[in-house]
Amino acid sequence: MRARVLVRLKREVLDPQGEAVRRALVALGIDGIRDARVGKIIELEVDMAPELAQQQIERAAKSLLANPVIEDFEITLENDS
Amino acid sequence: MRARVLVRLKREVLDPQGEAVRRALVALGIDGIRDARVGKIIELEVDMAPELAQQQIERAAKSLLANPVIEDFEITLENDS
Repeated sequence: MRARVLVRLKREVLDPQGEAVRRALVALGIDGIRDARVGKIIELEVDMAPELAQQQIERAAKSLLANPVIEDFEITLENDS
Repeated sequence: MRARVLVRLKREVLDPQGEAVRRALVALGIDGIRDARVGKIIELEVDMAPELAQQQIERAAKSLLANPVIEDFEITLENDS
């Protein structure tokens, strides 16, 4: 199974990296970008039952992959097809 | 409109950050993780027509957001609902 953990800064947290991206896009001549935010994605290949995977990956996200003080995370599980 | 650019290392490129995550998960007692890869996600709020947005964001991805030598990117556009 594949699991995807998306980690983003919370909305209320300033994102200087995103702001740098926005400015660089303007400098590239790309107008019309109102906002840019940068996050991480962690893709895992998992050998576990889906319920266990959800629970374990949630634990991993809380304690290792995201900083819950300033970041939100979102877990998606995908069965191999 | 929202645009999402997912930037990942190409499959054939070693991902030491992903490997560090995998080891840390094992150390946390989470078994059954076969592989971990870390990428970035750039989320943009865009004021453009969809066709223009696709084209401009592709240009941005190639020249700024991703390093095409070692990274692949994927663009998703979402209309505000």
